[in-house]
Amino acid sequence: MKAVQKVTVAIVGASGYSGEELVRLLLSHPLVELTAITSRQYAGQTLARVFPKFAHHAQARALRFCEPDAAAVARQAKYAFLALPHGVAAEIAVPLLQAGCRVIDLSADFRLRSAVVYHEYYGKEHPAPALLARAVYGLPELYRERIKKADLVASAGCYPTSILVPLAPLLRARLIDPVGIIADSLSGVSGAGRKAELDYLFCECNESVRPYGLPKHRHLSEIEQELSLAAGRAVVVQFTPHLIPVNKGILSTLYVNCSSKVVNAATVQEFNARVEACYREAYSDEPFVRLLEGKALPDTKNVVGTNVVEFAWRVDPRTGRLIVMSAEDNLVKGASGQAVQNMNLMAGFPETTGLL
Amino acid sequence: MKAVQKVTVAIVGASGYSGEELVRLLLSHPLVELTAITSRQYAGQTLARVFPKFAHHAQARALRFCEPDAAAVARQAKYAFLALPHGVAAEIAVPLLQAGCRVIDLSADFRLRSAVVYHEYYGKEHPAPALLARAVYGLPELYRERIKKADLVASAGCYPTSILVPLAPLLRARLIDPVGIIADSLSGVSGAGRKAELDYLFCECNESVRPYGLPKHRHLSEIEQELSLAAGRAVVVQFTPHLIPVNKGILSTLYVNCSSKVVNAATVQEFNARVEACYREAYSDEPFVRLLEGKALPDTKNVVGTNVVEFAWRVDPRTGRLIVMSAEDNLVKGASGQAVQNMNLMAGFPETTGLL
Amino acid sequence: MKAVQKVTVAIVGASGYSGEELVRLLLSHPLVELTAITSRQYAGQTLARVFPKFAHHAQARALRFCEPDAAAVARQAKYAFLALPHGVAAEIAVPLLQAGCRVIDLSADFRLRSAVVYHEYYGKEHPAPALLARAVYGLPELYRERIKKADLVASAGCYPTSILVPLAPLLRARLIDPVGIIADSLSGVSGAGRKAELDYLFCECNESVRPYGLPKHRHLSEIEQELSLAAGRAVVVQFTPHLIPVNKGILSTLYVNCSSKVVNAATVQEFNARVEACYREAYSDEPFVRLLEGKALPDTKNVVGTNVVEFAWRVDPRTGRLIVMSAEDNLVKGASGQAVQNMNLMAGFPETTGLL
Amino acid sequence: MKAVQKVTVAIVGASGYSGEELVRLLLSHPLVELTAITSRQYAGQTLARVFPKFAHHAQARALRFCEPDAAAVARQAKYAFLALPHGVAAEIAVPLLQAGCRVIDLSADFRLRSAVVYHEYYGKEHPAPALLARAVYGLPELYRERIKKADLVASAGCYPTSILVPLAPLLRARLIDPVGIIADSLSGVSGAGRKAELDYLFCECNESVRPYGLPKHRHLSEIEQELSLAAGRAVVVQFTPHLIPVNKGILSTLYVNCSSKVVNAATVQEFNARVEACYREAYSDEPFVRLLEGKALPDTKNVVGTNVVEFAWRVDPRTGRLIVMSAEDNLVKGASGQAVQNMNLMAGFPETTGLL
Repeated sequence: MKAVQKVTVAIVGASGYSGEELVRLLLSHPLVELTAITSRQYAGQTLARVFPKFAHHAQARALRFCEPDAAAVARQAKYAFLALPHGVAAEIAVPLLQAGCRVIDLSADFRLRSAVVYHEYYGKEHPAPALLARAVYGLPELYRERIKKADLVASAGCYPTSILVPLAPLLRARLIDPVGIIADSLSGVSGAGRKAELDYLFCECNESVRPYGLPKHRHLSEIEQELSLAAGRAVVVQFTPHLIPVNKGILSTLYVNCSSKVVNAATVQEFNARVEACYREAYSDEPFVRLLEGKALPDTKNVVGTNVVEFAWRVDPRTGRLIVMSAEDNLVKGASGQAVQNMNLMAGFPETTGLL
Repeated sequence: MKAVQKVTVAIVGASGYSGEELVRLLLSHPLVELTAITSRQYAGQTLARVFPKFAHHAQARALRFCEPDAAAVARQAKYAFLALPHGVAAEIAVPLLQAGCRVIDLSADFRLRSAVVYHEYYGKEHPAPALLARAVYGLPELYRERIKKADLVASAGCYPTSILVPLAPLLRARLIDPVGIIADSLSGVSGAGRKAELDYLFCECNESVRPYGLPKHRHLSEIEQELSLAAGRAVVVQFTPHLIPVNKGILSTLYVNCSSKVVNAATVQEFNARVEACYREAYSDEPFVRLLEGKALPDTKNVVGTNVVEFAWRVDPRTGRLIVMSAEDNLVKGASGQAVQNMNLMAGFPETTGLL
Repeated sequence: MKAVQKVTVAIVGASGYSGEELVRLLLSHPLVELTAITSRQYAGQTLARVFPKFAHHAQARALRFCEPDAAAVARQAKYAFLALPHGVAAEIAVPLLQAGCRVIDLSADFRLRSAVVYHEYYGKEHPAPALLARAVYGLPELYRERIKKADLVASAGCYPTSILVPLAPLLRARLIDPVGIIADSLSGVSGAGRKAELDYLFCECNESVRPYGLPKHRHLSEIEQELSLAAGRAVVVQFTPHLIPVNKGILSTLYVNCSSKVVNAATVQEFNARVEACYREAYSDEPFVRLLEGKALPDTKNVVGTNVVEFAWRVDPRTGRLIVMSAEDNLVKGASGQAVQNMNLMAGFPETTGLL
Repeated sequence: MKAVQKVTVAIVGASGYSGEELVRLLLSHPLVELTAITSRQYAGQTLARVFPKFAHHAQARALRFCEPDAAAVARQAKYAFLALPHGVAAEIAVPLLQAGCRVIDLSADFRLRSAVVYHEYYGKEHPAPALLARAVYGLPELYRERIKKADLVASAGCYPTSILVPLAPLLRARLIDPVGIIADSLSGVSGAGRKAELDYLFCECNESVRPYGLPKHRHLSEIEQELSLAAGRAVVVQFTPHLIPVNKGILSTLYVNCSSKVVNAATVQEFNARVEACYREAYSDEPFVRLLEGKALPDTKNVVGTNVVEFAWRVDPRTGRLIVMSAEDNLVKGASGQAVQNMNLMAGFPETTGLL
């Protein structure tokens, strides 16, 4: 047995919820040495002090936050995770790449292929448009081989992952109509980040549920980009996110029109079989995609804390629609777990290392 | 000023969540004398003992649960609220009506006009089909005048109220396409009733969100019945309920196709104005319907504990759709508050009595 | 029947959680005309816009927040509720009193009789020490008659109310040892106020419980002051507050030593009877104090939304201790409801007006 | 490097919350082969079907629940975890031990040294009193060496762990008075088990906090047994558990009297130093005990999902008391994680295997 070499890893921006989840995953990753964590706010303090929950890891008691200096990070780490706000991420990605780091960016900065769309949705000029062509969209179920060779991976967003994994195979197989897709999504509050804003106070979120950000939430841009690529034509999506009082978890309910007539028990059964075959072909070997069987329906509590996205579907002959429902942990498969999965691919590690 | 006479009132089945909410409302209702409460399980015990939360009301310390005997109830009360499971409600409604009671039924037993549809959705023969023609659907915003004169009111269901109030005026005004309507709804756990089942344990619901009951939840039958009446033609609806970890509250997100082309800022503005005019005409005098303005979106925490249903809408020129979002307290406007509102109408009281 | 005259009322600082709860109670109070609400942040906006939940009240659509100007407030209102931070409250209380307002202060500014103790616990000089002697501690169960005549009432704090109501009668009756009292209290997050701080974000409070502020939380000063007055000697209390993931509610578990030997069934029974007699004498006529009977134990869900404080007790012959457990809504009986109760007394209204 | 041999392991009673947590831990344990899981209710079904959350583990798709037959279990597993109700556990422990299994019991059946005390607290004769002397109390921080050699380990209870870990060293060192100890504890709802009872429904627990089971909760028996052993004399404890609306987590606030006078800054500082030295000596090498430093106080969210018990303390010169506050995950360090820790010791594995 050949000894597998550990890789050195840094987390740039490790004080938010995604950063914290990266810390959790990477401290326990058997092939990773976490060598640097950055945070302007906490520079100089140990990881254990800022996050007492990690204090039983010897390394957490030793490792100190440092300023986000690209050169220093690059000296200490071969892989750099960016858990920064959009815009800020691109700025540090440039020097990190130049210094030879392989970068896994959790922000939206490199997810879009078009700087014009970026400007439309994010309201500013893209800070490093030259890199867009070089970046790979970091959804392993769609882009595994390209991710392996990339040095800049734009880890897919939380909502998009819950929508793209169930819908991309159906669009590619022409099983559903690319017109009329609706994604109704529910997210836990950690999706809003660790920000001191009134809207996310406990008493404002608890015993509350509310839509927000419709009809053009920023994630719509990457959802439409990737669904269009899967369909081979422009896809317009109706996307409505909601905030629900859970810490973690996204549930997406997707309404699509079946591409063939589904009007009675026989046609439902036949269509169901085609959907199932399509999904089995796409995902039966995927370690982190779970097709629910029988009467089971997705439930965020069954995926929270794991890197799994699970989904079920129902065909409704009364409306001719297919309803697909998916669940994931927004901070794991929707962010940090997926980023680690991407890193595993880039480093040539077994894809599930540190994630099961 | 003429003295308004109090009415005598009974709650048949007062130990579930709807029953408890009726107790809360009726104990404080200035024109009601709560004379009887029934519960097989708690017969003989005082209201204060079963629900300590009411023990500071003198009447709660005096009033005892009794067996659900129609004759006895009818001797004590002119108005009887039925907070019973479907099937059971119809059985006691018959003798109560014969004995001269006016009945407000919170179950689904008298909401449907067709015994055939009842059988399709509830899986059994209707226990009292002869009464269906006599019952009035208890949604005051739609049937106020008929409710006033009825002696059997089938108080509208929780999900249906959150869907019918926003959509009925749009269908009547032909502003939206009756084809393709989707209702994606989220409900607090009290909607499942006070039942000792594993699925509704705290640890099974907390930090969890899940769809259920699709694609043919029982409430679909009354949703389609009433939307069809509003549209003047058969309406088929896609309805997906979800369970979210709040005690009370329903949020419905409704996707409908605009009946005129909405493709740019100008047509959006025009359509918006027509929607607003339609809603203002329908609801500006309604005491319990709140149209949200400006950037406000519905939030269950703003309606829980009140009899208000609030909603907002957005037009999306990218898809030609109107998205209407509504929020209500499933136990108040979705059940017991609405039942009291119905009773106020029946008794000739100001409609908001005891509900503000 | 003589018509009861309505009183004019202002809320100074109406944008926090206590202020919001005051708005809720006063909008529905039949003998109150809410004429002014102040908020620097929201000045100029209507109540309905800032708090959509009140928008179905016609008055909420008309009433606008104004700047906290004492002269303007005094022109519009006979009674002024102060829902302001400590220190700030005292500053506006002075001109309000001079202008003839009767003031109900929800802050801690006038709860302590000693400016020295105020300095010790609040870390600054008292802003208006001359008023301390004039203020009455606003706990009606202890100071009803004095409150009626006061023009400055310092409404009792949330934790103190849950501790003083159960313990004061026992100390006065010499049933418990004034030495060794422990109060272990749990509070919902609204107790921390509507402040944009990381510590009170949903994800920091949900699925979390933590002690804080020990061993000298600010409320300890008024707890000890009032228990000392009840005991007729200095009482030192161990007080540990905790934050639990509920919006509203305080539960206090109080550990005290019985003043007589309680070592077996007989002495337990006898002591129990003395405690019960003491409580019945103190509280059987109190509209907002609920003694739980039989096996019932307090539960915050039974008091939230009401002005009731409920409690139960157990005697433990193994330790010679009495354990008293109390529950209340921290924003109602612990703040705004109690303030309205105080105002009812001051105005000569039935004490429960607007609170049942 | 010598290859470490995997051990075969069974979970008897794998359908409750502790059983589920054992499954989670053991499926990922690198030195364990989970060969049998039992459940009368689910016999014949795969683990993946009963708990979809584990379905991404290949083994969960293969392993089926079987009836709890001791002989069959013993054929398949060297180590048997019992996650059964008290009374039931002892009955199967006897044949399992006879068949050569090493047993880790998560119930209370073998925690007490005295069958008389068992009868007093559990209301029935002990089903296997002859085994009591053979059993080792399964709290590694107290009994590590004995656990290594035991074939029957009674894994410590959830509340007791949170109380014994902080208090045992102080009693052994005579730093605190064995008289007058109070343990005020808060537990998440999973502590009540997966039982379909009204009391544990979401709507009965959410937005609620309540004491229960005082003053003689069953866990008191093992708390007093172990504290008495630590103190070298009989210790009587006041113990009050409360139910709080979190899924997992216990927070205990412990009130004890310092054994030396602590009346001013100097004596506080000196006593603090002695407590710290005591704790450092006891626990600085413990992998799962975390002493909080500086201003940090325990928070269940920092330990949930881990096998760590963390605690902090404060000395109050006003009362002469030491207050120690501890937090743990009731299902991990309070149950299944601790059981795995015990198994690691019994099997000669590194103690933290599968737990970090």
